[in-house]
Amino acid sequence: MSDSAAAPVQVDETRLTPLIEKLGRIGAQTGGGIIRPLYSPAWREAQDLVAVMMRDAGLSVREDAVGNVFGRLPGEVDGPVLLTGSHIDTVVHGGAYDGALGVLSAIAAVEACAAAAGTPRHTVEVVSLCEEESSRFHSNYFGTRSILGLVEADEPERLTDPDGVTLADAARSVGLDPTRFGEARRDDFDTFLELHIEQGRTLVDAGVEIGVVDVITGFVWLEVVVDGRTDHAGATAMTNRRDALQAAARMVAAVEGVALAEGHPAVATTGVVQVHPGGSNIVPGRVVFTIDTRHPDPSVLERMVTAMREQCENVAADREVEVSVRLLKETAPHELDASLRTVLRQAAETCGASWRDLPSGAGHDSQTMGTRVAAAMLFVPSVDGRSHSPAEYSTPQDCARGASVLATALSTLAW
Amino acid sequence: MSDSAAAPVQVDETRLTPLIEKLGRIGAQTGGGIIRPLYSPAWREAQDLVAVMMRDAGLSVREDAVGNVFGRLPGEVDGPVLLTGSHIDTVVHGGAYDGALGVLSAIAAVEACAAAAGTPRHTVEVVSLCEEESSRFHSNYFGTRSILGLVEADEPERLTDPDGVTLADAARSVGLDPTRFGEARRDDFDTFLELHIEQGRTLVDAGVEIGVVDVITGFVWLEVVVDGRTDHAGATAMTNRRDALQAAARMVAAVEGVALAEGHPAVATTGVVQVHPGGSNIVPGRVVFTIDTRHPDPSVLERMVTAMREQCENVAADREVEVSVRLLKETAPHELDASLRTVLRQAAETCGASWRDLPSGAGHDSQTMGTRVAAAMLFVPSVDGRSHSPAEYSTPQDCARGASVLATALSTLAW
Repeated sequence: MSDSAAAPVQVDETRLTPLIEKLGRIGAQTGGGIIRPLYSPAWREAQDLVAVMMRDAGLSVREDAVGNVFGRLPGEVDGPVLLTGSHIDTVVHGGAYDGALGVLSAIAAVEACAAAAGTPRHTVEVVSLCEEESSRFHSNYFGTRSILGLVEADEPERLTDPDGVTLADAARSVGLDPTRFGEARRDDFDTFLELHIEQGRTLVDAGVEIGVVDVITGFVWLEVVVDGRTDHAGATAMTNRRDALQAAARMVAAVEGVALAEGHPAVATTGVVQVHPGGSNIVPGRVVFTIDTRHPDPSVLERMVTAMREQCENVAADREVEVSVRLLKETAPHELDASLRTVLRQAAETCGASWRDLPSGAGHDSQTMGTRVAAAMLFVPSVDGRSHSPAEYSTPQDCARGASVLATALSTLAW
Repeated sequence: MSDSAAAPVQVDETRLTPLIEKLGRIGAQTGGGIIRPLYSPAWREAQDLVAVMMRDAGLSVREDAVGNVFGRLPGEVDGPVLLTGSHIDTVVHGGAYDGALGVLSAIAAVEACAAAAGTPRHTVEVVSLCEEESSRFHSNYFGTRSILGLVEADEPERLTDPDGVTLADAARSVGLDPTRFGEARRDDFDTFLELHIEQGRTLVDAGVEIGVVDVITGFVWLEVVVDGRTDHAGATAMTNRRDALQAAARMVAAVEGVALAEGHPAVATTGVVQVHPGGSNIVPGRVVFTIDTRHPDPSVLERMVTAMREQCENVAADREVEVSVRLLKETAPHELDASLRTVLRQAAETCGASWRDLPSGAGHDSQTMGTRVAAAMLFVPSVDGRSHSPAEYSTPQDCARGASVLATALSTLAW
């Protein structure tokens, strides 16, 4: 692939904005927000629409065995494919930009490159990945993992949604055949470029137009179980209690304190709390809560986890309850490809866009793709930093600018 | 009724203990604890067993329209009935003593009085109330309220259990006719005596054998709704969050602090916490939690509630979230009948039992009965103060001593 500086390739906002609006109507809820989980009717409708959009952009379309949709623009030479795109599933009551913008920008970018320079030297494909959000099944990065051959054989039957439907049955309901899932594996591409909204406010606060992701933050998910003693809320004196919730409240506060003490970009979140037995007139005997903590530096992340464990144990000792902290899931920080990052920075310069390097606090397909191929990401600003919310929004100007930088980078790499 | 001092009437533990053990097997779970909610098969079995026990004790048995079971010993004179007993429903995974001991002690006590002194002057009835715990429906004191005519007409169809079964349908499933519920009302009794386990550790800690309840604590139930902002747990900096749970954790801690600051017997409990949207990688946007706070002095209780509201508002202001505090339910403290308390104290003295006055932090049927008739309660010690738990236990000696004090008091009042 060429490293030579290319002319800017512009994606017009009048081309991109209608695509965002059209896809954003699929799964949109009356009360606001989009619900478009894997293998739902809305998901099926969205992938079918994306296929039409790809055809309209001059790409030849194919859906693989797990429902990833690819739009291909064949190159002059035989060789590895350059893949670009993102995912089209959403969280519950998510927005129109997380994932979708990366797919639609890639379609518009490849179209713009072809309009400017005709047939590429290397084959380019846009991918609309079937799943990234784990919003229906604990299937995280199912699209990417299928492409890389990382899905375990029993997952389709083992993973169930909250209603007990297996991933396999859900796939059948949208016309896919789970026995053929293995066919989704590909070994013919060597590069993955992903455009995404920032989902935070680093860019908006700094007034910077493009983010070049240097590292995707590592994270640790912990489950904390606090065991105290169930008692009568009226008859048990305050000084005779071993209240699991009062202990957990201090632990939850301490978790925040650990992240604040490390400073930005350290984060820690408790998003799930279960109180047992859960009666308003019963002193809680057991509380289970989660910790999600992230930092791009593995040594800092490890220090944070150690501090959280210690603080939970200190609170437990102080309040005479038992505590156990269990590792649920751990993902190491992933540094994105240095050469591709240089291409993205140069593309931003070529487009006259201000840019900065920044870490991603959210996980992305690029970190899994990056374990096998060269991968890089660019961010466009999120208004107010909002994401995973109906309030998610990026301006048409920012979206078009991001797509232009992507197009310029693709042009450099494939044309 | 006579106020003269009676000789002690002894209930033998070899009579009472087998009754406790037998009733305690109904609804007992393999893993420990008893589940015997209103109108369940276990409840039906328990009331049928109580009816047999009443007949064995020489009482004539009748079940009313809502499933309260009465065992009657007719007196020589026509006049108001003296009622004694408690409830046989349990909380989920409750113990064998809460409620049940009051029913079984009353049966054994009336039997012992009749054995000692024959036919009473005044009619005595033992009642096994159908419901007190609100463990299936929000039907609190349904047995007592039915007897007093305090159940609202739409309650049987309006109240549903967690599976959506109405109280009316549940009643039909155990052979009762909800259209006849109104027939449970009675106006022919003027006294209610209830024996109960303490459910706290005042008596065990003081080494005192009998508690004479002076006041049943008033309580306030509050619901607190904290509204922050849902955000991405990875991409949102700690300093940009409006985390509803981090705010709620401070509020929950402050609630405890208010009760501790007032000192014993003030109590405050958060037993229910709901976190929305409840994803481990989502900063909570809304948290709803309950406060149950109690004090026998209404002015102190009011001061506590005011302090809790203020502290919640201070935390909310400090952490830039919204909070609203709503009154769910409020019950004024209820002082028990002074004359009956004197009778109970004298009965304890007559039996050679140590006693003390104490407030009840738990609510009881006596506080509702007491709004219409003279009511009083005596407590027996709870080992370790445990209750609403499989660990609930009172020694056979303490149970028999309590039943003897009850019998002696009944003898004073009715024979």
